[in-house]
Order: sequence, then structure tokens, then C-alpha cells
Amino acid sequence: MTSTWEEFYAKTPKPADLEENKVLLKNFIDRFSNTNKKVVVITSGGTTVPIEHNTVRFVDNFSAGNRGAISAEYFLEQDYAVIFVYRLKSLEPFSRHFMGNKFLDMLELTSEDSTDSVKVTPEHSNKVANILKNYKKTKERLLQLTFTTLSDYLWLLRSVCQAISGLEDRAIVYLAAAVSDFYIPPNEMSEHKIPSTEAPSIHLRLVPKVLKPLVNLWIPKSFVVSFKLETDERVLISKARKALENYSHSLVIANILQSRRQQVVFVTKDCDYTLRLTDEELKNGEEIERLIVENLVVKHVEWMEKAH
Amino acid sequence: MTSTWEEFYAKTPKPADLEENKVLLKNFIDRFSNTNKKVVVITSGGTTVPIEHNTVRFVDNFSAGNRGAISAEYFLEQDYAVIFVYRLKSLEPFSRHFMGNKFLDMLELTSEDSTDSVKVTPEHSNKVANILKNYKKTKERLLQLTFTTLSDYLWLLRSVCQAISGLEDRAIVYLAAAVSDFYIPPNEMSEHKIPSTEAPSIHLRLVPKVLKPLVNLWIPKSFVVSFKLETDERVLISKARKALENYSHSLVIANILQSRRQQVVFVTKDCDYTLRLTDEELKNGEEIERLIVENLVVKHVEWMEKAH
Repeated sequence: MTSTWEEFYAKTPKPADLEENKVLLKNFIDRFSNTNKKVVVITSGGTTVPIEHNTVRFVDNFSAGNRGAISAEYFLEQDYAVIFVYRLKSLEPFSRHFMGNKFLDMLELTSEDSTDSVKVTPEHSNKVANILKNYKKTKERLLQLTFTTLSDYLWLLRSVCQAISGLEDRAIVYLAAAVSDFYIPPNEMSEHKIPSTEAPSIHLRLVPKVLKPLVNLWIPKSFVVSFKLETDERVLISKARKALENYSHSLVIANILQSRRQQVVFVTKDCDYTLRLTDEELKNGEEIERLIVENLVVKHVEWMEKAH
Repeated sequence: MTSTWEEFYAKTPKPADLEENKVLLKNFIDRFSNTNKKVVVITSGGTTVPIEHNTVRFVDNFSAGNRGAISAEYFLEQDYAVIFVYRLKSLEPFSRHFMGNKFLDMLELTSEDSTDSVKVTPEHSNKVANILKNYKKTKERLLQLTFTTLSDYLWLLRSVCQAISGLEDRAIVYLAAAVSDFYIPPNEMSEHKIPSTEAPSIHLRLVPKVLKPLVNLWIPKSFVVSFKLETDERVLISKARKALENYSHSLVIANILQSRRQQVVFVTKDCDYTLRLTDEELKNGEEIERLIVENLVVKHVEWMEKAH
């Protein structure tokens, strides 16, 4: 049984930080509303579905947030303002290059005037300097907002759409987050940790498809891109096309779990075409997101021109 | 229905990197076997339970890996060799202090002899220098091994125990990972991504309790510490005591989800006592893991003396 999106919002409490995020959004958007700056909303990372009120366990979607974090860097490079809506602790643009203790190995202690200071080793300083330059150059155009659970995400997404609706065709919404299709309504959740003495069955409900009100009611004039991730190649394109028919948005980017870093398919109403890195490019550290964003920016501009 | 631990290992394929990890373990242990160095195995972070073979979705346990990563630093400070067995991408000792883009804000670009170099800002250089010093001083005594799924974890844990069994009472095993109590056997998993058109029910099985063979067969002479995390205070101590009776290991550290950063209870066969940070200490950034590790080291030494 699916509830409607209106029921979902009526029955699910809003996240504690929503009002704070709305203020951040308003201040950010206000800076660009009287310019011709293009804006992209990127959602990134997986949503959790708690199975207990006092949450110890949850159902999660596989996503480190690579697609979203990498794409954010390329959109900033293309001079977009970026609203990066990401799962808390998933990858962020720029810092994604420096995860874990490997980064500590790039640092060295030096003594200057008998005070300790810390430097990036000469071997790594070029790479780090470049990333840091890009970060500092673009951070004024980057707003980062976080979610954890599915309901945090759905509340935040609606507020983001309300905040950008005035930007109309200048805005892209790039839905790269791995959003759960299933959830457990608050009134069906266990209050405390499920005892580990019995094997439970978890009964999930379908999440209402908010892409429908998003495209039709919240931001009808913006450029909306959704992703379709499958593991079975045979159903990929037909499912992407089905999504386009159901929601009538601008574009579906279709990809297979195993090859998603090398190849994606752009599916529009009229056609589909493949973007692909060669094995050589992949080996050299090229990122498919560069192709995705470059292609998308061209499509966005064409589409804006057609709209006027 | 619970399967036995023997059945679990017989029916679940071993992780691809297990043999590689065994070599790393052997080389690490060999360096300490003819010394009197004390060794601790720390498990950290949550295990995943895939619900599909080509995994897009999984059931996860809440854990960023704070307890384990922080404890590893204090054990290194206490001169232990540390085998840190952690969930891929969960927190690691030392680098845990530098997560996300906040760390990029601690860096500045400088130009020396017309080449770019990158430095930690003077404001943060003391803190970073101290952490970096501790990291460099102790990294030879730190071995890091990763897992993701529940079955990766169970295979790796057994191999680690086999590798350290010769250390006998010099070894502590500190089981801080949040290990799933439930799983889906490989033959009951869905091959491809479950279609999002129907609400599924997930039927879970109980995971066999490997603490039993661990204590009784794999490392009967080592000091074994398990954790008990609950959300309901009323059942905490009784459950901890039950675990001690069932597995006859050395110590259970019991904690409540909401207060786990401020308070834990050490539960042994004979008594239980509380370790607690004051509100003031907590506010000043003190970590309860310092108390846990200091207490544990005293207990370990007493216990080694008694054993001889």
C-alpha cells in the first residue's frame, strides 16, 4: 500500500534543523536572484530508513556519494552556484580527495622560529594546492545542507524546491541521491532496540513518488534530472523511459551499478545516447562526471533558449 | 532458526581479501611475538547485511566508529600494539579529527621560491601538529584491516583470533564493532535489485554467536571485552550479566545509546561499576574512551599477573 505524498508530509514529523536550513537557503538564493547566475541543486548519498524509534538499526541504500560530490566540483567549474544536499558524512566536493589516514601521510612537521608548523609534503603539494585553490575560489557559490533519514531528505527536498522556484529555468535539480523506495511509517516502528533473541521480519511500505509534485507543482519551470541505477542491464533503458513518461521531467541518466564510473546513458523523450570513458581515460583518473556535467550544461542552455 | 557458527562458515563464502589480510596479520604479529609487547584487537564500526546479491540495499547498524577509533588512540598512547579492524570508511584513529570540508578551511596556500605550497594555518597548527606527531610516533604499532558486510567481519575476526592466539594473555580483544544480530543467508537473497513497485518484507535469520567459539576455542587465554548497547536502561545491566554468563569472557562494557559518550558501566563476574565524565569534562572535549582504556589496562595487567 502506498500513501500519497500529501499523507507522507502530514504524518511524518519534520526534521529539527529544517527551519535553520530554510534561512540558509533564502540567504543563498537571495544573492543570485537578481543576477543571471545558473543554479544547480545536487542531492547526494543514500537515505536511511530507521527500523526502531531509538535508532540502532536501519535499512540503507548503497552510496558513498561519489556521483554527487564529483559532479558538484564540475558544476562549480562551469560557474554554477551549487546547493549540495547530501547525506551526513557522505563524500563532499574537494575534501573527497583527502579521506582517511592516507591524507595524514601527505603532511610533515616543520619547525620555524622554534614553533611547530605543518606542511603538505613537496611530493603532494601541487595536487593539494590545486584542489585547495578551486575550493577557495568557489566556496562562496557552494551551500551544503545535510540529511540522514528518508524523511529528513523528503522534507529538505521540498523546502529546497520552494526556495528555488523563483529561479525558474535558471535552475537544474540533479537528483543523484540514492533514495529509498521503501520505509516504515512511524506508527509501525519498534520503540526500542529489537531483541536479538528472535529473527524479525521487516515489513516495508512504498515511499510515495515525490518526483511527481516536484515536477508538476513545486518547480514546473526548472530543468529536472533524475538517475536510474539498476543491476540488470536488460531493464535499464525501459525503466528510464518509463520514469520519463510517469513524471515528464527533462532527463533520466541511466546507469548500471558495476559500470557506473565508466558509462551512463542520457535518456530523453526523443532519444538516448551513451557517454563513456575509454579504459585508458578511466585508468588515468578521468571522471565520467566531467562528461555528464559538460553535456548537461549544453542541454540546459539550449533548453533555456527554447523556453524564451 | 539459528544456524551454528560451523554452518555459517561452511555456507558463507570468504571475502576476496582474506588471504592478503592473513599475510599482513602474520607479519605484524611476528614483530611482537618475541617481545613482551601487549597487543589489542579493536573492532569498530557497523556491519552491513546485504538484502540483494548485486547489492544496492542493505540493513546497517548505527555506528560511525567513534568508540573504536578513539580507543585505538588511547591504546597506542598506553604503548599497546593495535590491530584496528574497522568498517571501510568508518572513522579511523587520528584522521577522525579531520573530517569533511572543515579541514580544508584549516589549510592555506603559500608561495615559496615561486612554487605553491600548502600549510596548516597558524591558528590550527598546534592541534594538527600534536595529532600528527602522535600518528607518526605510533603508526608502526598500528595495523588497519577493513570489513564491510557481516560475513566479511566474521571471517576476518576468526583469522585475527587465529593470528594472535600465540600471544595468549598478552592480547586484549575489544569488540566495539556494532555487529548485526540478523542476516539473510546467501540462498535467500534476491539476485537483482528488488523492484520498487512492490513493498517487500525482509525475513532475517539470527546470526550465530561467535563469541562462544572465540572465547572457548580460538583464544581461550586472552582478555576478551564485549560491548552491550541498549536504548532501554531497565534491561542494560541484566543483559550484560547474561552475556557474561553465556560466554564466560572477561568483561562487558554496557552503555545506553543516548549517554554513551558520557557514561559506561564495566560489568564483570563479581561486580559492576560506572565510569563517567562530568558535564564539565564532556564540554571541554574530554573523551570517555580515555577512562575506559586506562581502567582496562589496569585490569589487563592485574589479570596477567594472576594468570602466572
